[in-house]
Amino acid sequence: MAPSATVPNGTLPSGSVTGRLASVYSEVQKKRVDHALPLPSVLKHPFTIIDGPRSSAAGNPDEIAKLFPHLFGQPSAALTPSESAAAAQPHQKLKIGVVLSGGQAPGGHNVISGIFDYLQERAKGSTLYGFRGGPAGIMKCKYVELNSDYIYPYRNQGGFDMICSGRDKIETPEQFKQAEETAKKLDLDGLVVIGGDDSNTNACLLAENFRSKNLKTRVIGCPKTIDGDLKCKEVPTSFGFDTACKIYSEMIGNVMIDARSTGKYYHFVRLMGRAASHITLECALQTHPNITIIGEEVAAKNLTLKNVTDYIVDVICKRAKINYNYGVILIPEGLIDFIPEVQHLIAELNEILAHDIVDEGGLWKKKLTDQSLKLFELLPQAIQEQLMLERDPHGNVQVAKIETEKMLIQMVETELEKRKQEGKYSAEFKGQSHFFGYEGRCGLPTNFDATYCYALGYGAGTLLHSGKTGLISSVANLCAPVEEWTVGGTALTSLMDVERRHGKFKPVIKKAMVELEGAPFKKFASLRDEWAMKNCYVSPGPIQFSGPGSDAVSHTLLLELEAQA
Amino acid sequence: MAPSATVPNGTLPSGSVTGRLASVYSEVQKKRVDHALPLPSVLKHPFTIIDGPRSSAAGNPDEIAKLFPHLFGQPSAALTPSESAAAAQPHQKLKIGVVLSGGQAPGGHNVISGIFDYLQERAKGSTLYGFRGGPAGIMKCKYVELNSDYIYPYRNQGGFDMICSGRDKIETPEQFKQAEETAKKLDLDGLVVIGGDDSNTNACLLAENFRSKNLKTRVIGCPKTIDGDLKCKEVPTSFGFDTACKIYSEMIGNVMIDARSTGKYYHFVRLMGRAASHITLECALQTHPNITIIGEEVAAKNLTLKNVTDYIVDVICKRAKINYNYGVILIPEGLIDFIPEVQHLIAELNEILAHDIVDEGGLWKKKLTDQSLKLFELLPQAIQEQLMLERDPHGNVQVAKIETEKMLIQMVETELEKRKQEGKYSAEFKGQSHFFGYEGRCGLPTNFDATYCYALGYGAGTLLHSGKTGLISSVANLCAPVEEWTVGGTALTSLMDVERRHGKFKPVIKKAMVELEGAPFKKFASLRDEWAMKNCYVSPGPIQFSGPGSDAVSHTLLLELEAQA
Repeated sequence: MAPSATVPNGTLPSGSVTGRLASVYSEVQKKRVDHALPLPSVLKHPFTIIDGPRSSAAGNPDEIAKLFPHLFGQPSAALTPSESAAAAQPHQKLKIGVVLSGGQAPGGHNVISGIFDYLQERAKGSTLYGFRGGPAGIMKCKYVELNSDYIYPYRNQGGFDMICSGRDKIETPEQFKQAEETAKKLDLDGLVVIGGDDSNTNACLLAENFRSKNLKTRVIGCPKTIDGDLKCKEVPTSFGFDTACKIYSEMIGNVMIDARSTGKYYHFVRLMGRAASHITLECALQTHPNITIIGEEVAAKNLTLKNVTDYIVDVICKRAKINYNYGVILIPEGLIDFIPEVQHLIAELNEILAHDIVDEGGLWKKKLTDQSLKLFELLPQAIQEQLMLERDPHGNVQVAKIETEKMLIQMVETELEKRKQEGKYSAEFKGQSHFFGYEGRCGLPTNFDATYCYALGYGAGTLLHSGKTGLISSVANLCAPVEEWTVGGTALTSLMDVERRHGKFKPVIKKAMVELEGAPFKKFASLRDEWAMKNCYVSPGPIQFSGPGSDAVSHTLLLELEAQA
Repeated sequence: MAPSATVPNGTLPSGSVTGRLASVYSEVQKKRVDHALPLPSVLKHPFTIIDGPRSSAAGNPDEIAKLFPHLFGQPSAALTPSESAAAAQPHQKLKIGVVLSGGQAPGGHNVISGIFDYLQERAKGSTLYGFRGGPAGIMKCKYVELNSDYIYPYRNQGGFDMICSGRDKIETPEQFKQAEETAKKLDLDGLVVIGGDDSNTNACLLAENFRSKNLKTRVIGCPKTIDGDLKCKEVPTSFGFDTACKIYSEMIGNVMIDARSTGKYYHFVRLMGRAASHITLECALQTHPNITIIGEEVAAKNLTLKNVTDYIVDVICKRAKINYNYGVILIPEGLIDFIPEVQHLIAELNEILAHDIVDEGGLWKKKLTDQSLKLFELLPQAIQEQLMLERDPHGNVQVAKIETEKMLIQMVETELEKRKQEGKYSAEFKGQSHFFGYEGRCGLPTNFDATYCYALGYGAGTLLHSGKTGLISSVANLCAPVEEWTVGGTALTSLMDVERRHGKFKPVIKKAMVELEGAPFKKFASLRDEWAMKNCYVSPGPIQFSGPGSDAVSHTLLLELEAQA
């Protein structure tokens, strides 16, 4: 309440000509833009790069070897302190491109700052091009030359708007040709691809292609996705997961206090994560909700929608007996995709809708198998209608459009009504639905994500400078102080397996799912019964950039690293 | 990432036996619980209470005088430093009750801490009772004696769960009798009612009733509501507004960066505030969205739903011409209630639904007036169905259940499709809906709300100690440093007017609406055209408890106080 605090905003003290020029920065944005980032000590001093042993693949190494004849088997690389640095990093001006691929994740701008600062500090006179709008920017050679003024306002800021992103892929021979032409035209020494599992697979194909054509352009990937499903031993986490989970957990914690204060609502919170439930699990570990549904467990136990509903209803009934008629329930947005019977129903519906007339009388339902019919009839009417009416351009049922949390509320209501009539439940149930999604993708990166991303980018610079290609930037030992973080690169082919698509083998980096035998799930499983009946709610509060807790790492990362140690 | 930071949570270092006993506190909660609050300097030293001139009412003083024969006209009170404090505050042990009434607002726990600390420091040996579950706790004499250990874990924490709240009112003669009995049974010297406009009206009726029965129990109100619609010159803001708006603005800022990064979505954000649009206006001033709808303006200009839709569509079309096919739009949840034609339609529908058969052929629609029929046909089908099918227990249409943001998205889609066919628009429109509500009601109070609430409670203690009744605790000069804040009490009758209900005059504290001639709206109105076309987005980021911006007051408060000065 000092006089200076009465000017909540001011124009950014920078003459930069960027997309954020029209922006007024908040006090917090301003503080963050000038926040100096620590570097792992191996990056602060002369270093040399040590190659590890020959690598293999995550599965089907013979097929991966065929798909990546020039790259397969190459070792991972680790930076190590060195007395004489001259050999490792020749004095050379580099031309490097960088691209953001896929959905936003907090910290992307810091990867770019990291690359830029590396070039400024260790390869003076280098040039950094930012390809605009994702991989399409590479194909169309749409880029901007990044300089100090251009980058400045984006330091430690959320979003991908510095150069924007896109979901295009470089797939066809023509598209690879376009990428080659861009690499030649800009005389690129290297390219950094910041993306998820698909984008890093694509990065490796590009690296293989450039190598096969004897182009000098090397390609390094960086692990990005708030979903947290791109990780392995060498890449302990993808960036953005930490910030997104902390933003969602802030909201969940607030809703929990609301639930306890009001004492009359069950809050059903749907969280991002269509393929894997890492976000839901991490938020559960941060906040201790009464009920958490983990998609991978539903799939592994072959649970039905009725099973999931009953599980929720059982807890609600037990809580009613001790006069708790409120609670918080976390649901991953991909839940429906994890339920085998739902998949069967959808497949049958798609078939029927494509070939048959759907009569009002419901005779068409006879074409469903018994199991699917039973499930269909179990669904709330609004969901039935949604399944029948809203279809994608190919005429398929749009599962993604189903608001799972609202569907579950209706199913729980119906089941509770039944139990009421059976005299097994006598309280009142009020469901409130929430979806936390977009709010988390572009938040200001936490200290962890800001520092991690900066090291990923700086490390990518070192790898390109040392002539490496087909690696993913790998920063590890993340629970130790930043000084002790390790830096290197992991062979992308070593993360790959193949999938058969249209009669051909396609390389894929398998999504890392929640492991039911992993430490985070086991910790959750050991506590969930207690959380169900007692209200052990934790309210993490808003992300702080200084003071207690501001440097905390995610529970998932901490538990996984502890288990490895 | 120091080793200590690897323990993100710890049990609260307290032996308190409270509802939060089972809770593990996050680092941020722990930091806040021990955060020492500054007091206005007048509360730190001996003071005396100066009465102002005789007061009147906000309207119909004669009727208010009849309704409050013992209290009408009493002066407001102001604390002022005094050399000899003995006269103002007799050494006396007090028995005080406190109650939370209505919806949660961040800071409620601090009002209670403020009362408690006042009693501890200035009236040693006093007792503080917390009535449980709102006014019903007074009527049923359901209370807990608050002590230091009990209060400790709730200091600077969100929620109302220390004693919980409720929406009951003390209205009938029997209920007033029950309240009297409780006051007598606990030998109460005073009662603090923490609530919104209705609850403070109720507090004044209680004060009048106790006075008329010659009970010693005095009643002081405190201004609570996140909606920000309980305020006047002496009470510059209600508590909770600051925190809630900052939480919503964090989310809006994140969605803005997402919109700009993705470049393809229009985000329609519905915000709390059924009666008044203060929250929407404040969030607009904090974040600079492309479009903001203020309910009070819609009502004042007698706009139709078509007008509102056209305004949005016009901006979208203009933006499309400069290749901005994305944006952020803020909508108050009470929007529909502000549109006169919607009110007419609802009234007609209620009449028809009550008396006529609604035939499938739609003949019933002939009973609608032309204007209402036109509006009904303009509504998306899903909304039409919702209006016809979902009714409250009295058979009335449930306006509150309409998801305004989704309705507007559909109406905008339809209008854009029309313009496309007319060749006036050729881009692609994708709407995303959001509702930010519960997330903001129970967040950790900002520094402002934490300090303001503590002063409100401490001040309420001084007023009761001095024998005052029928006042609302008033802390002002809020843009100055805390030391300079003024403290006092305002006669509740001076805020009142009457409304005629069921043939009787009822006293009401009029809700403070957004003033179209007020400084906050005028500032917004002067900037909105620029915000519409340029993307001047501000991302306030998560609430910080230390460092730059952490003590900032809301734009609304700042602009209103500047205008008064």
